Amino acid sequence: MPYRSPLAELRFHLDHVAGFPRLATTSRFAEATPETVDAVLTEAARLCDGVLAPLNRAGDLHPARLENGLVRTSPGFAAGYRAIADGGWIGLSAPSDWGGAGLPLALATCVNDMMSGACLSLQLNPLMSQGQIEALSHHASPEIQALYLPRLVSGEWSGTMNLTEAQAGSDVGALRTRAEPDGDGTYRITGEKIYITWADNDFTGNVVHMVLARLPDGSSGTKGISLFLVPKLIPDTEGNPGERNALRVLKLEHKLGLHGSPTAVMSYEGAKGWLVGPPHGGMAAMFTMMNNARLGVGVQGIGVAEAAFQQALDWATTRRQGRADGSGTIVEHADVRRMLATMKADLFAARAIALDCAVALDMAAATGDPLWTARGAFLTPIAKAFGTDVGHAVAQIGIQVHGGMGFIEETGASQFARDVRVTQIYEGTNGIQALDLVGRKLADGGEAAGRLIDEVVEIAGRARVSHPQLAEPVWQAAESLRETTDWLLAHPADRGAGACAYLRAFARILGARAHLQAAMAGDGARLRLAAFYVRRLLPEHMGLLAQARDGAGGVLDVTAADLAS
Amino acid sequence: MPYRSPLAELRFHLDHVAGFPRLATTSRFAEATPETVDAVLTEAARLCDGVLAPLNRAGDLHPARLENGLVRTSPGFAAGYRAIADGGWIGLSAPSDWGGAGLPLALATCVNDMMSGACLSLQLNPLMSQGQIEALSHHASPEIQALYLPRLVSGEWSGTMNLTEAQAGSDVGALRTRAEPDGDGTYRITGEKIYITWADNDFTGNVVHMVLARLPDGSSGTKGISLFLVPKLIPDTEGNPGERNALRVLKLEHKLGLHGSPTAVMSYEGAKGWLVGPPHGGMAAMFTMMNNARLGVGVQGIGVAEAAFQQALDWATTRRQGRADGSGTIVEHADVRRMLATMKADLFAARAIALDCAVALDMAAATGDPLWTARGAFLTPIAKAFGTDVGHAVAQIGIQVHGGMGFIEETGASQFARDVRVTQIYEGTNGIQALDLVGRKLADGGEAAGRLIDEVVEIAGRARVSHPQLAEPVWQAAESLRETTDWLLAHPADRGAGACAYLRAFARILGARAHLQAAMAGDGARLRLAAFYVRRLLPEHMGLLAQARDGAGGVLDVTAADLAS
Repeated sequence: MPYRSPLAELRFHLDHVAGFPRLATTSRFAEATPETVDAVLTEAARLCDGVLAPLNRAGDLHPARLENGLVRTSPGFAAGYRAIADGGWIGLSAPSDWGGAGLPLALATCVNDMMSGACLSLQLNPLMSQGQIEALSHHASPEIQALYLPRLVSGEWSGTMNLTEAQAGSDVGALRTRAEPDGDGTYRITGEKIYITWADNDFTGNVVHMVLARLPDGSSGTKGISLFLVPKLIPDTEGNPGERNALRVLKLEHKLGLHGSPTAVMSYEGAKGWLVGPPHGGMAAMFTMMNNARLGVGVQGIGVAEAAFQQALDWATTRRQGRADGSGTIVEHADVRRMLATMKADLFAARAIALDCAVALDMAAATGDPLWTARGAFLTPIAKAFGTDVGHAVAQIGIQVHGGMGFIEETGASQFARDVRVTQIYEGTNGIQALDLVGRKLADGGEAAGRLIDEVVEIAGRARVSHPQLAEPVWQAAESLRETTDWLLAHPADRGAGACAYLRAFARILGARAHLQAAMAGDGARLRLAAFYVRRLLPEHMGLLAQARDGAGGVLDVTAADLAS
Repeated sequence: MPYRSPLAELRFHLDHVAGFPRLATTSRFAEATPETVDAVLTEAARLCDGVLAPLNRAGDLHPARLENGLVRTSPGFAAGYRAIADGGWIGLSAPSDWGGAGLPLALATCVNDMMSGACLSLQLNPLMSQGQIEALSHHASPEIQALYLPRLVSGEWSGTMNLTEAQAGSDVGALRTRAEPDGDGTYRITGEKIYITWADNDFTGNVVHMVLARLPDGSSGTKGISLFLVPKLIPDTEGNPGERNALRVLKLEHKLGLHGSPTAVMSYEGAKGWLVGPPHGGMAAMFTMMNNARLGVGVQGIGVAEAAFQQALDWATTRRQGRADGSGTIVEHADVRRMLATMKADLFAARAIALDCAVALDMAAATGDPLWTARGAFLTPIAKAFGTDVGHAVAQIGIQVHGGMGFIEETGASQFARDVRVTQIYEGTNGIQALDLVGRKLADGGEAAGRLIDEVVEIAGRARVSHPQLAEPVWQAAESLRETTDWLLAHPADRGAGACAYLRAFARILGARAHLQAAMAGDGARLRLAAFYVRRLLPEHMGLLAQARDGAGGVLDVTAADLAS
């Protein structure tokens, strides 16, 4: 079944759950009117359904490959990329100064959702450029901005992030790539980077690498790291790509999924680079890029979940089994219905959280209100981890709904699971997201967490009037979450061991809030799905909260030697 | 890191958890002495570690393929199979009348566990033969037994199961393959079968297909189905393979995993077949084969979980991250420790359940006591579904422990997940297992369930003396399980919607019982792992039991139209 962008679903989220309409009340996003939103979503859906979705399988079957040092992309990807760039999609939320449309990130999030569902491996390319645009907008010199941003926004050039080295993964501070001043204000970058997504291609005029490296006087650890811009082709002052820089793609990885997206080992051999941000200030600049990308990655999970759900539903409503007269399809079976309802209900919850996060980031940008900033920052790791966990879980349920055919590659059901699996790992593993949540994001003494919990309680209070049976368990869950939050605040040394469970419980309860909102605003179908979520999926929070406040002992008592015994 | 058979772990299970020693007190298994067990396990480990494990990656990289109608197997698989057959491993628990060793299924289960961890795609071949040996031992005529069983037991020939057709998967009764009497006591079989595991190979002298088909007077549905033996080469009366039968491998599937195991579409074109069991009695004979195979498939999940755990632990104890001086490995991080402890604790639980099931089936065979039969029957779907769910979950956690390298095929971490995924689907999807549990297996009014719950309560009672903090939550969980069981018994129409959650909760609580046994019998490491399980994993049962007794309404209220809206 061909992918269909979930236009009505996204509109419902924006209007009734995510609070998107308030954006148009700010001067910054005054243009984000319902008409604009409709036009943007409709046009994006046309691109996704008509141009990008047909490329998805080709990317899997015909991986990007390295030929004589050049990356050859999958069939049709060059044209697909051109359509994305020409439609102005890369710069949808980029500043208008550089050719962007300056629309809300929340709207760009909807578009990224659709593109991820259509063709994740290609969508990953503009997602990387978007992160780079964000970083350069905030941290680069005016000269670099003027030279690079218009070309990244238009999609003429694309961008990459170069963080990881073989010995430095989650521990970025261990990196060894060196940057030596060249006397002319530029630097010579030398080192080897791994996991470089879309490190090269055969369809953009240049590839711009953002590379973390250490200056000669950089201390060890993360505080001695600086960020450099290192173009594949060195542009002249007019921006015409010229001389080839001293960098190479050494090899492309053979991956579980995302075959259409080339993942490279990169070698920098004294490549010319420009400092972005202050010396030794690379981590801050990198986090600008990364935070944006973290939400974006969460949305990748959601997009794939949508596609996997659509396909599983199509299968379940056409596959005939279990009736003597051959009349029924498998969607009639309670357990199949349960699987599909789980997919749809969790997809709804994850999407609501991601859009909540995006709207908060937009409101922060529009108003400068630190409460919005804190909300966006708090929701980012939840949106990333829960969005991608749901993405993978939904894709796996999709395989199960297909039965034996789920294991056969021909159906595409397993491609969704293979492709989306890395989203739980890259841009900071979901374990790292959870540590960020219980560390940095609770460092305000639990204020941001408390405000979100208050909001759940408030919405449950409103829902009590019309839907008491739904509202009560959500209210109770929110209060349990508050108790666990207080416990974690009082036990900082125990946070790490409970981090993942806490993050997931928080997401479960935010998901319940969104379902309550939908039940109050929507039709009977929304209400029934909300009831399913509250009765079937929300109860998971009990076991999760028990884990979250179990303390470090329960985990660390099991020693490394015990594990090996 | 190379796979190492978990000899000490299996011995601990047999001696202290599974109650294996009682088998040697029966006359049937008097030979299953500790010395024999040791010799068998040690020898099997030598085969698995030295011969089979080195083939695992080759099977993935060089799939079985079809050339001019002949199946060409992966490099080394022919020699690997020969080593399995020559070692007498296929007939380890087969009757000695046919050349088997007549040892307990529980011991064969340990061997299958090791072989699955070493090379799942090859192990699947003898597993199919073992199911066929079981079926022929119970249902075939003496002539067929004499002709086929010795050759299947020795591994000279291999066996397959042919159930599924394109329109008949979980709904076997919808099959269309026909069997016409040929006048000479044989039948002409005509039809197309799919998902035929190890349908052919280039290393056994013959391949024996067990084919479900309908006789001309067979009614529609499952009651009109008969079972036929259809050899690839028709043997003469001395058993020399002769004339080629009218059957063909039409194609091999391109699968998510298990590339080393050829999965075929088979065409029967008037092939000569022999009836096994009475006319229209095919389902009973097939279930003999299938029940054996269901436990075997659960054990496949466990074997892969073991291999994935070993590799993840090795990675976590050698990968250095997160310490300025580079001294620490990632196993020091609480969240990594949590992941590894989860892998090990769930692996222990799943293995305990499978061996409990195997010992029950052995005791049933040795004593004829219907209580043992009922216990084995009750535990079979739990062993299958929980074993394979744990297998996949553990393999996925293994990917996560590897971080970015988990997504790169080179490490092999993702191969475990790809290979084991189908075990949740074949031999009856895990949803079908759950329906079997709440349907047929509760049809005794909950007696078998009640006895198992009593046993958990009894063991928790004993553990209360020495380990009160561990025992109390297990006791409570068992009583909650009893309440939910009673609720399901009183609400038969609601069972389907709660089936999967009920099965998993039952497994969680049986796993807790096994961990309590280990804590009482074992060293400090066993105790700490048991505490981890009880504190961290057991609480999941709360949400699961809430789901199990939520009733059909919560699921079926969400209509097919709602899902599509």
